[in-house]
Amino acid sequence: MERRSMRQYEMYELEWKKSEPAGSFVDIPLNAVFCWGEEEKSVKGFYAGKGVYKVRFLPGHVGKYVWKVTGVVEDAGECFCGAAYSRRVDGEDIPKKQCALEGRGHGPVRVCGMHFEYEDGARYTPVGTTIYALAHQKEPLIRQTLATLSKAPFNKVRYCIFPKNYDYNHNEPEHFAFLRKKDGTWDVDRPCMEFWEHFESVIESLERMGIQSDIILFHPYDRWGFSGLSMEENRKYLDYAMRRLSAFPSVWWSMANEYDLMTKRGMEDWHEFEAFLAKNDPYGHLLSNHQCFVPYDFSRERITHCSLQLRDVDLAKEFMETYRKPVIYDECAYEGNLVHDWGNISGFEMANRFWCLYAQGAYGTHGEVFLSEDEILWWAKGGILKGQSPARIAFLKEILQEANGELSTWNLQEYAGQKGGFWVEDMLKGVREDNPLANFYHSAEPTRKISVFRTQEYAGHYGKQFFLRYFGRTCPGLTVLYLPEDISYKIEVIDMWEMTRKQVYFGAAGKTEVHLPGKEGIAVLAAEIEE
Amino acid sequence: MERRSMRQYEMYELEWKKSEPAGSFVDIPLNAVFCWGEEEKSVKGFYAGKGVYKVRFLPGHVGKYVWKVTGVVEDAGECFCGAAYSRRVDGEDIPKKQCALEGRGHGPVRVCGMHFEYEDGARYTPVGTTIYALAHQKEPLIRQTLATLSKAPFNKVRYCIFPKNYDYNHNEPEHFAFLRKKDGTWDVDRPCMEFWEHFESVIESLERMGIQSDIILFHPYDRWGFSGLSMEENRKYLDYAMRRLSAFPSVWWSMANEYDLMTKRGMEDWHEFEAFLAKNDPYGHLLSNHQCFVPYDFSRERITHCSLQLRDVDLAKEFMETYRKPVIYDECAYEGNLVHDWGNISGFEMANRFWCLYAQGAYGTHGEVFLSEDEILWWAKGGILKGQSPARIAFLKEILQEANGELSTWNLQEYAGQKGGFWVEDMLKGVREDNPLANFYHSAEPTRKISVFRTQEYAGHYGKQFFLRYFGRTCPGLTVLYLPEDISYKIEVIDMWEMTRKQVYFGAAGKTEVHLPGKEGIAVLAAEIEE
Repeated sequence: MERRSMRQYEMYELEWKKSEPAGSFVDIPLNAVFCWGEEEKSVKGFYAGKGVYKVRFLPGHVGKYVWKVTGVVEDAGECFCGAAYSRRVDGEDIPKKQCALEGRGHGPVRVCGMHFEYEDGARYTPVGTTIYALAHQKEPLIRQTLATLSKAPFNKVRYCIFPKNYDYNHNEPEHFAFLRKKDGTWDVDRPCMEFWEHFESVIESLERMGIQSDIILFHPYDRWGFSGLSMEENRKYLDYAMRRLSAFPSVWWSMANEYDLMTKRGMEDWHEFEAFLAKNDPYGHLLSNHQCFVPYDFSRERITHCSLQLRDVDLAKEFMETYRKPVIYDECAYEGNLVHDWGNISGFEMANRFWCLYAQGAYGTHGEVFLSEDEILWWAKGGILKGQSPARIAFLKEILQEANGELSTWNLQEYAGQKGGFWVEDMLKGVREDNPLANFYHSAEPTRKISVFRTQEYAGHYGKQFFLRYFGRTCPGLTVLYLPEDISYKIEVIDMWEMTRKQVYFGAAGKTEVHLPGKEGIAVLAAEIEE
Repeated sequence: MERRSMRQYEMYELEWKKSEPAGSFVDIPLNAVFCWGEEEKSVKGFYAGKGVYKVRFLPGHVGKYVWKVTGVVEDAGECFCGAAYSRRVDGEDIPKKQCALEGRGHGPVRVCGMHFEYEDGARYTPVGTTIYALAHQKEPLIRQTLATLSKAPFNKVRYCIFPKNYDYNHNEPEHFAFLRKKDGTWDVDRPCMEFWEHFESVIESLERMGIQSDIILFHPYDRWGFSGLSMEENRKYLDYAMRRLSAFPSVWWSMANEYDLMTKRGMEDWHEFEAFLAKNDPYGHLLSNHQCFVPYDFSRERITHCSLQLRDVDLAKEFMETYRKPVIYDECAYEGNLVHDWGNISGFEMANRFWCLYAQGAYGTHGEVFLSEDEILWWAKGGILKGQSPARIAFLKEILQEANGELSTWNLQEYAGQKGGFWVEDMLKGVREDNPLANFYHSAEPTRKISVFRTQEYAGHYGKQFFLRYFGRTCPGLTVLYLPEDISYKIEVIDMWEMTRKQVYFGAAGKTEVHLPGKEGIAVLAAEIEE
């Protein structure tokens, strides 16, 4: 057997060479237990082809691990787990704020309230993009994609295990997750090792750049038969995927892209997948499910965050308030010029949706689809970015990183010396009970009330230090900020499209009038002046 | 008594001088019957001050009218009603299409299916603007406003009888609809004749320019007490208003601006107003009611059209399908730079909303609110137009006038050789019944289904002659039109913002691919090539 040195938050691998399994290559008995002091973690190993058996483990602690392997292989050992990569620069810890930008060596991303953070507590602000068939392209194209990503603002990529069949997705991949039986159907007991090795190399390449892999386990756009596997076949597939992939620190599970279009699956199937993943992923990676029309029930215990296909950024607040979990618009239409209206918003609109979402403390995922002769559209295959939104998204990310943490919804009246809440309620005092408005207000369901009376406010804050309000497509010539009285602020007017920042106050506090240029895409930022 | 010569579709007035009424100046017995052949119309006269009594009548026919007046005045006579102004140029009828542009002398505007037309059948496409307190401004400003309107595309103005108190509406009008009692409250039995004469001069000035007056009878923005009149006082007010104003051909009744914010009024009050107006307006002018939050029930028999405050142009189809009456977005936010988000959309967005609405066969009303030192904002007081949308609205109007009639919703698949209708229904054939999409589709209410599955298609047609599709904020680089096979079309690509039209085909038919510039604000027009 071989061993790589063990390091906190990096995948550790044990390997043995033996004869190949007699039956299924998937469902093999191979278990390992890793102990760190009293803490025990049990993981499954997998057959990697050519007589090689592997166990992968993701250590979360510094110090001595003792391990024992049973099943096809019987072995035991111990090793010292070194401090995470993020703590090794100049022998000192990098400040958390700074290493968040770096992105590596912090462990898996976890949910923290309405936001995310790395396991070690470092900050992680998801700024995603979509390259569904990334892993099914030829090597030169993948290398080009990675080169593009190295200069882009994105730190999460959504992509599929199964290949995609759709407009602009016609190429046949070199390898598939399984080998075929003689009758042409898939043999889920015989994984295609070349596929999985290649797929893992993509995860690793992204990880090295600090990019999370939001891995899509199922999707409906299929001409090969993967969307029609039986539940028994699906269980084997997921089992093998978890054995191989779950020790990567940077993976997330997106049960499906457009789960509701998977016509052979009913709701119990999705619930079963949830339970299966919870049982077979020893690390509890992030888990959600993305819809076409019917949002998944994000209140379910194992679902870590809301993963939405939704264009109306004004609904983010409702999802945040309903589920009290982080909200990612994993699809809010793509920048491009396709015939389809999911794929032809302007660069301005893509950037606008990002600004609207992030200013509220929600998150977005980018995608790009420009018609081209070579049929290489970023959203499907990667390549180069042609759009105008990534630069604006990078500009947004840069500004958000100046805060000391993630933004929460800012009630604009909080420091107004007035009570916040519904002016409608005040207005209704003493109103005739059969007045249409009173009638409506008293009889409507809460969500209906919210959707009628909500105003489009894209405003977030981090404590009393950082207040950001974005005006979206509206064009005020003036705004009034109600800031805390006891702190001195620098106020900037930001043009998200021109990517300019203009300081208009240094030393503002309390109620402050800010003149604005009266155009679309303007934000105001008030940041505490640091000594 | 005096008489003006009688002309079809013009207000005719009879006048007598006597002593002033003993009691109420409003509720006087003065009735007239006008007979044209067998057709009888009964109207009420009014006291006009200084001992003058008047009867106004709007004749709809050419030929001899015989009239008889009873009550305070007893009189009778006959006169010949000449042909309408619109039919007098060069002694010949002007073609209907052409005279619609002229706008005068066609009689009141009526509803015709999902659209409007003049009583004589000439075309009328409402292109409205909003100047709430138009009639409460000083003369020079009103003259400036009328001069502005003479060069603007608008042929309907929404304005109030009662003055308005609101941001940027602080000036005290010279006259009010009534005189005050000694205790300062309004004496609805004593109309202020200067007010009404002045108000009528505004209606007349607009009418001379072919502009309809969408007169707002009630509204909540009040510091003088008009919104708090009792129902008995309201009845007297409406009675007097109908006696004076209903014979103007160009008036529409908007029962209220934001009726649901009239906190002293319940729903029965609005129903009573409806009935009262139906009884006291002998000409059945257009009637609707405009909301802040809760749309009025436009299915009510006397309500002629949907008058909406609504920003989401994608809901127009639902209102059209639900009520099968013309739909006007009388408020879809205003071009400007106010703090309030009802008053700070860009010129692009205002024009965009117009294009979205008209392309579907619905209608919009413009408004403009730019901050200015003199507090003269168009939407309140008139003056000059500063925005960028009116030119684009004029450009749209010009294009629409090239059709031979109003547009109806265009089912884009109609000539595709496929059946139209929901692709979702096809997709669901053979799908598991407990699939989330199938579940949702089979259990959701029809309106919920529409709102989930509707696509944003702004497309309208007039017969097989004229097909217009607008792409709104989407940026397709290509579109496919399915046109009838048996007609030859000229196809243009229109940039609504740049106001350019580029012919891309001459002689197209059937399925036609059209390349587009891939930016916001683009439309495609296919018009039959006329011999």
